Amino acid sequence: MNVPERLYLDHASTSWPKAPGVVEAIAEFMTECGASASRGNYRSAQSAGGVVSQTRQSLASLIGAADPSCVTFHSGCTQALNVAIHGLAGHFATEGQEAIVGAAEHNAVLRPVRAAVQRSEARLRTVPCDESGLVNLDGLADAICDQTRMIALTHASNVTGVVQPVAEVGRVVAEQNAQREPKDRIVFLCDAAQTFGYLPVDVQSMGVHVLAAPAHKGSGGPVGIAMLYLHPDWHHVIEPIVQGGSGHDGTSDGMPDTMPGRLEPGTQNVAAIAGWRAAIEHHSPRADEWLLLAKRLHDGLRSVDGIRVAGQCGALPIASIDFGPLLSPAEAAAILDSEFGIEVRAGYHCAALVHECLGTQAGGTLRISCGHGTTEADVDRVVDAVREIAAEL
Amino acid sequence: MNVPERLYLDHASTSWPKAPGVVEAIAEFMTECGASASRGNYRSAQSAGGVVSQTRQSLASLIGAADPSCVTFHSGCTQALNVAIHGLAGHFATEGQEAIVGAAEHNAVLRPVRAAVQRSEARLRTVPCDESGLVNLDGLADAICDQTRMIALTHASNVTGVVQPVAEVGRVVAEQNAQREPKDRIVFLCDAAQTFGYLPVDVQSMGVHVLAAPAHKGSGGPVGIAMLYLHPDWHHVIEPIVQGGSGHDGTSDGMPDTMPGRLEPGTQNVAAIAGWRAAIEHHSPRADEWLLLAKRLHDGLRSVDGIRVAGQCGALPIASIDFGPLLSPAEAAAILDSEFGIEVRAGYHCAALVHECLGTQAGGTLRISCGHGTTEADVDRVVDAVREIAAEL
Repeated sequence: MNVPERLYLDHASTSWPKAPGVVEAIAEFMTECGASASRGNYRSAQSAGGVVSQTRQSLASLIGAADPSCVTFHSGCTQALNVAIHGLAGHFATEGQEAIVGAAEHNAVLRPVRAAVQRSEARLRTVPCDESGLVNLDGLADAICDQTRMIALTHASNVTGVVQPVAEVGRVVAEQNAQREPKDRIVFLCDAAQTFGYLPVDVQSMGVHVLAAPAHKGSGGPVGIAMLYLHPDWHHVIEPIVQGGSGHDGTSDGMPDTMPGRLEPGTQNVAAIAGWRAAIEHHSPRADEWLLLAKRLHDGLRSVDGIRVAGQCGALPIASIDFGPLLSPAEAAAILDSEFGIEVRAGYHCAALVHECLGTQAGGTLRISCGHGTTEADVDRVVDAVREIAAEL
Repeated sequence: MNVPERLYLDHASTSWPKAPGVVEAIAEFMTECGASASRGNYRSAQSAGGVVSQTRQSLASLIGAADPSCVTFHSGCTQALNVAIHGLAGHFATEGQEAIVGAAEHNAVLRPVRAAVQRSEARLRTVPCDESGLVNLDGLADAICDQTRMIALTHASNVTGVVQPVAEVGRVVAEQNAQREPKDRIVFLCDAAQTFGYLPVDVQSMGVHVLAAPAHKGSGGPVGIAMLYLHPDWHHVIEPIVQGGSGHDGTSDGMPDTMPGRLEPGTQNVAAIAGWRAAIEHHSPRADEWLLLAKRLHDGLRSVDGIRVAGQCGALPIASIDFGPLLSPAEAAAILDSEFGIEVRAGYHCAALVHECLGTQAGGTLRISCGHGTTEADVDRVVDAVREIAAEL
């Protein structure tokens, strides 16, 4: 039997192949330098430190951060989000206060926010999506009350690719905060896991105080490294949830007071940072192209009889479908892999709440997610394969 | 001017070069597979899952763990230690209870233990080292009281290379615990950052309940990945400090109840795990050779006039020296790098308490640390260079 050529369409999990130069940059750093950053005053250690500081500067510029010290490196987007959420819990998750999350959030936001709120006597309010997958903006604005201290909104859903009204919420938050004392202000967190590297991400125009993004998705970089953006107003509010060696202040009792060191204990993954640097030199956001690809994917799938496409067509070329009771998403994914060489993911995609809004809570979805390198022909190939599978049910 | 050949002697920070095959294994995984583990039921995702489970199994066997589910992957040893310390804080760091740490601990242990204890009304007791760098065993045993719930002892100091009496403390802890109810038992934590891959590490004979070790030091693997060992008795005690997607149970409110998934949220760094797998296939502990190298290094340095060697010669080829008031460790490190091509680290080495015991609290030390690939000729070269620098003071 002929094995069809591999078509990887699970980019919302992780990108593959990586951007040109990424693997080489990692191998070169490990082979040629290999030293620990900020851990010595010999030249290769300083060179490693230079990789970190240059990449921090590049990322800060890319997202419009006021200063590179607003950007910290973490081992993944989940870790970055936890560092922010638990680190700011002293502000938003104390007795009587309230956090608001959108229903399209990933478990990397939902679970730490829930854990932080449950530890204290704080409250958690969830704002649903409509069936298109879009969080209700009026509903969210109406949910804000005097006790609201945190709002989390994903930039785009990893299930549907639908971009959420982040900048609009940012404006509402800014209006609220203008009338509040610093201790009562709302911290606005955005999970940009699905968008960074695919779409423009600008913390100023989005009005966010906290933003997290990994290297390994839209950036086309390696796993094992991510960034956290923290607005300067919150630098003295956040508490490090992880403590360890900081490369300086070695005899002090705790982590340094200053950013970025305050949130970066332990040996930094400079090889992965070198890989990310190579990636961001290569990929840049191409919103127009993604939209064309998204439309082609959604239009194609909607023309297939016997399947259902969840939510509306978003700005990212992601689609979640199901084949009804005769074929589970997991079975469909297995067929796509074994018979068509197409790799997609089945299940709930770590987004606990969105399926109730989309009507896919029974068995989750089969998610097709495109990325850098995906062509129109690739989209047509997966649509044709889905059509073939649906026709045989 | 001739630039001398690079001699890397900062292995206690991170190993370089990496074990043969590590860089290639990472590049191969990223290029050929690249999928996320446990995030899909297509074959390359399953293949990625296989890398994780096989490496988990290998590591569990290497350290004598009862079951692979006792081993979890984290982004670094600092993270692994924090996951354990903060995750078990509900057991050991509540009002009136007490934690004991040795003075040779790294800040990756000291700082999170201090943070956990300070959050509650618990107490922290520090057991000093003698001037040889060895934690006083009788002093530690005497410090144990009815309120003691946790003891942390590094396997070997990163400043001196002196191996601590872990198995002896393990026996004392086992005797204590045999007389206690589970809720009152002492959890015994060992930081094996400096030893794993260099010396045998066996959790059974050491009698430890928690052990953390990174890939990037003695293993000769990459940065960005580490393991945490947790004895089965503590699986139902530990609380995850980081929450996120777990690849299954997507619609549940929190992390899975079962190990290892309970402590492994987010996308796993499978490329780094593949690199670690290649490393452990290559390196194995060679205690006899390290001891010979350590003696050669210490004997050589002790024959140099005008410098001081801190602590005794340990089981690992690490030595901390200082040149007295005329030359700081940082200045000496810069000279070794620029004039001799030798890379070593100066400062406190993220070990806040040991310097007072060693008498090096004024300016820290210049640390020379050997690793896989360091030869007797390399040791002689650094000793000669130190002698030359000292002679010119």
